[in-house]
Amino acid sequence: MKLVPLFDKVVLKQLVAEETTKSGIVLPGAAKEKPQQAEVIAVGPGGVVDGKEVVMQVKAGDTVIYSKYSGTEVELDDEKYVIVKQSDILAVVE
Amino acid sequence: MKLVPLFDKVVLKQLVAEETTKSGIVLPGAAKEKPQQAEVIAVGPGGVVDGKEVVMQVKAGDTVIYSKYSGTEVELDDEKYVIVKQSDILAVVE
Amino acid sequence: MKLVPLFDKVVLKQLVAEETTKSGIVLPGAAKEKPQQAEVIAVGPGGVVDGKEVVMQVKAGDTVIYSKYSGTEVELDDEKYVIVKQSDILAVVE
Amino acid sequence: MKLVPLFDKVVLKQLVAEETTKSGIVLPGAAKEKPQQAEVIAVGPGGVVDGKEVVMQVKAGDTVIYSKYSGTEVELDDEKYVIVKQSDILAVVE
Amino acid sequence: MKLVPLFDKVVLKQLVAEETTKSGIVLPGAAKEKPQQAEVIAVGPGGVVDGKEVVMQVKAGDTVIYSKYSGTEVELDDEKYVIVKQSDILAVVE
Amino acid sequence: MKLVPLFDKVVLKQLVAEETTKSGIVLPGAAKEKPQQAEVIAVGPGGVVDGKEVVMQVKAGDTVIYSKYSGTEVELDDEKYVIVKQSDILAVVE
Amino acid sequence: MKLVPLFDKVVLKQLVAEETTKSGIVLPGAAKEKPQQAEVIAVGPGGVVDGKEVVMQVKAGDTVIYSKYSGTEVELDDEKYVIVKQSDILAVVE
Repeated sequence: MKLVPLFDKVVLKQLVAEETTKSGIVLPGAAKEKPQQAEVIAVGPGGVVDGKEVVMQVKAGDTVIYSKYSGTEVELDDEKYVIVKQSDILAVVE
Repeated sequence: MKLVPLFDKVVLKQLVAEETTKSGIVLPGAAKEKPQQAEVIAVGPGGVVDGKEVVMQVKAGDTVIYSKYSGTEVELDDEKYVIVKQSDILAVVE
Repeated sequence: MKLVPLFDKVVLKQLVAEETTKSGIVLPGAAKEKPQQAEVIAVGPGGVVDGKEVVMQVKAGDTVIYSKYSGTEVELDDEKYVIVKQSDILAVVE
Repeated sequence: MKLVPLFDKVVLKQLVAEETTKSGIVLPGAAKEKPQQAEVIAVGPGGVVDGKEVVMQVKAGDTVIYSKYSGTEVELDDEKYVIVKQSDILAVVE
Repeated sequence: MKLVPLFDKVVLKQLVAEETTKSGIVLPGAAKEKPQQAEVIAVGPGGVVDGKEVVMQVKAGDTVIYSKYSGTEVELDDEKYVIVKQSDILAVVE
Repeated sequence: MKLVPLFDKVVLKQLVAEETTKSGIVLPGAAKEKPQQAEVIAVGPGGVVDGKEVVMQVKAGDTVIYSKYSGTEVELDDEKYVIVKQSDILAVVE
Repeated sequence: MKLVPLFDKVVLKQLVAEETTKSGIVLPGAAKEKPQQAEVIAVGPGGVVDGKEVVMQVKAGDTVIYSKYSGTEVELDDEKYVIVKQSDILAVVE
């Protein structure tokens, strides 16, 4: 089974946030309050959303930063995803 | 009796959420706080909604994920349904 | 006396919700928190509402489901009505 | 002195709500929580309101039902009025 | 010094609200919760406000009723004024 | 260093509000709750803001009244400024 | 790794706010409640955002003041950034 997003929706898979201190110690991250890095899994077709043409700018495989508190958590086949609108994606990490 | 949705409304029938643990044990699901898988039962004709043209993208029989907290619960002939706007549907499950 | 709704307003008369259990026992319904079945009594002429053309899709005599918490209760000649906007009507029951 | 409403504003004079029970006993009404019957006293000229053309549909002398909680109470020469926008008027009583 | 309002702003001077009882006794008014009668002192030029053309309908010297809770109190040369948008003016008193 | 506002932003410098009583006694003003007189320091170029053309009507040197609670306080080189949108300016004092 | 903002987003790096008293004593700043000076690190391409054409006015290297409470904090490679919409930038410091 796979998720096929509608319109301007984007399916993300959150990357596990491990924090590394400056001295190099790795702390497994919980980081609930901080914006999220995620991998783009699937991208909707865009089109007219709420009367406005939306062109999709991200593609599957991109690593992105998305706005905290946005999106809906989804669980499918024991995997967790977040579905956001493209406008909740702030930046691509290259 | 059947429900014929107006405009961009979609009639959904929630799928019973049974959770399977990784070891294979099936837990009957309550999962009230999580987004919902549902089957599309009926789809409105679309058209001009709030001054904007809406084209319907889902069809009866689709399994969809819809936004939690959206929609209105309806009971007809002892069956429960949820009526949502198409824009509250996040993704189709294929 | 009768109610003649303006613009996109629809006058509804709530149907008494009697709940029937699966074994056939009829329970007189209170069901305050649940969406409502109602009969359409009168329909406004539509036209330009808030700058947008609205075409009326329901007609007197239809049984409809309308969004809970919407509408205004009105009492006229000892009869109770609810006046809603057409966009608060979710589906027609056929 | 008289009130001349601007744009899409309508001056109403609330009708005293006397409740009659089915057995014919008249109860002087307080009915604070219920929508209001009112007589239209004066009607604004309509025109472009918030960038949208508004055509006035009610006229002085009409009895109307208006949305509860809308409007502004005004007192002039010991008479009380309510000034509402035409869109707060739900129906005309004929 | 004088106040020259911008765009659709209107400078008002609140009229002292003295209440007269039916028996003719004059009560000096405080009337804080009630809509206000005011004299129009100065009127902005109108024009495009928030992307919409606004034509001014009131003029200096008019007595108007304005919406309670709207506007900003201003003090200049020991005189108190209220600056409102024209759309907060409900009616002219003639 | 100087502040160059973008779009429809205006840099203001608040005038010290000294209150004079009717008998002529000057009270140094704190007047936190009251709308503010300010001098215009710099004016943005206007242009398309949120999809709407904005033409700037105030200029550096003007004394203006602006809406209380609007704007953002900025400190630069030990001087305090307030940056507002032009639409938060109510009137020019001449 | 670098952040490539989408649409009208701008990546900022907050400048450390050191406060200097009038007598010349430097206080290391915390200044959490005050608007922020920041350096522009990266600027999105602009384009159609929410149905409206946005042209970017700031460029990498600019020192800007942005609206307090706006933006999303991001951490990448042990560096902290804030991503804002261009419309949350109030002024350029020259």
